[in-house]
Amino acid sequence: MGSPNTRIGLVLFPKLTQLDLTGPVEVFGRMPDVEVILLWKTLEPVPSDRGMCILPTSTFDECHSLDIICVPGGPGQIPLMEDEDTLQFLRRIAPSCKFVTSVCTGSLVLGAAGLLDGYHATSHWSSIDQLSLLGAIPVSHRVVRDRNRITGAGVTSGIDFALTVVAELVGADVAQEIQLQLEYDPSPPFYSGSPRSAPQTILAITREKLASFIAGRRQVTERVSKRLASQK
Amino acid sequence: MGSPNTRIGLVLFPKLTQLDLTGPVEVFGRMPDVEVILLWKTLEPVPSDRGMCILPTSTFDECHSLDIICVPGGPGQIPLMEDEDTLQFLRRIAPSCKFVTSVCTGSLVLGAAGLLDGYHATSHWSSIDQLSLLGAIPVSHRVVRDRNRITGAGVTSGIDFALTVVAELVGADVAQEIQLQLEYDPSPPFYSGSPRSAPQTILAITREKLASFIAGRRQVTERVSKRLASQK
Repeated sequence: MGSPNTRIGLVLFPKLTQLDLTGPVEVFGRMPDVEVILLWKTLEPVPSDRGMCILPTSTFDECHSLDIICVPGGPGQIPLMEDEDTLQFLRRIAPSCKFVTSVCTGSLVLGAAGLLDGYHATSHWSSIDQLSLLGAIPVSHRVVRDRNRITGAGVTSGIDFALTVVAELVGADVAQEIQLQLEYDPSPPFYSGSPRSAPQTILAITREKLASFIAGRRQVTERVSKRLASQK
Repeated sequence: MGSPNTRIGLVLFPKLTQLDLTGPVEVFGRMPDVEVILLWKTLEPVPSDRGMCILPTSTFDECHSLDIICVPGGPGQIPLMEDEDTLQFLRRIAPSCKFVTSVCTGSLVLGAAGLLDGYHATSHWSSIDQLSLLGAIPVSHRVVRDRNRITGAGVTSGIDFALTVVAELVGADVAQEIQLQLEYDPSPPFYSGSPRSAPQTILAITREKLASFIAGRRQVTERVSKRLASQK
């Protein structure tokens, strides 16, 4: 048994949206000769935004090289945009990575680390406009690649994102085998998965419920934007 | 704050396929007034088939009523079909549930507990035929409902399954809001998600790689089938 060919690290932070991480972890974990590493400051269990606790497998300090870094999103992403330990880790590890990636609002964390300046990127539909505050160029696609940055849109896009990354890394055949293993032949029972397809009443209700949360996120993103500008 | 209106329990067993569980957990956790309970024999961290550790939130013994029970699948489902603690828990809790449910090969565990006798049900495409050994009638659909049994097909179908369950429980509006929150507007990068759509070479390779594993599962399912027949 040699060492794994591919080391993929995902940041596992408090109050993340767990499916942003667990979707890609399921896909990546099925690659041949892969090591999937769940990274946080300590090895204590990390609670998701709704309380599901997952164990990290490595601390930031223990991690010296990766082929891919991936930052998921979720409410905990807001304080993460100003968390120096996380931002320093991302800046330290990114240059060694083949791909620097995110799912959902994880792209705002990459942006806060200065890693999306001048790159096309995507994010959750509710917050994608905030990317431009961090120097990125928002693109409302499910998966966006610009040079070695690959970003996925909201939550469930992490599965499409991860299959795309696998195909880039080791070829379409492996990605297709994994898709078949996961029986990823989606059949949503409703047409409500994006602002373009959702019924107008559902979109209006959802926007209203999210409004103050998104405004709070924007306040932080604006503060980070000023910090980034002052460092240029 | 009153007690939650809906209590949803999922069995969190060693060597489960974590996305079978984490997909539905993400959907269910967004219902109003819900408690999502991760059930196992102890509260120690439970490793998935690829080593991701999740913490249970309740033991079987502590759990006396649920609105929904859900059994996910994965390799650990094979010993679970002969695990008396689990089978007894499922038989004890099922009569109190509005819906008795599964994702992926979790349906084989429901079958082993005698809970699918005479019911239409689905499972992962690789093992759906084994359902008939346990008295169920296999149906190759993504989500199958028969009376109060709702079963999902392989792994990623858990998201479609859970949205279907939410709509049954509290209405299509809530399910559609959750679908929008999760940006569940899937766009798989390949057409390889089922034996019907996958390229023939990919299907052949995948079947070959899985063959001995599926044969091992079948041996256990056949033994359980005999036990069920002898108890009739």
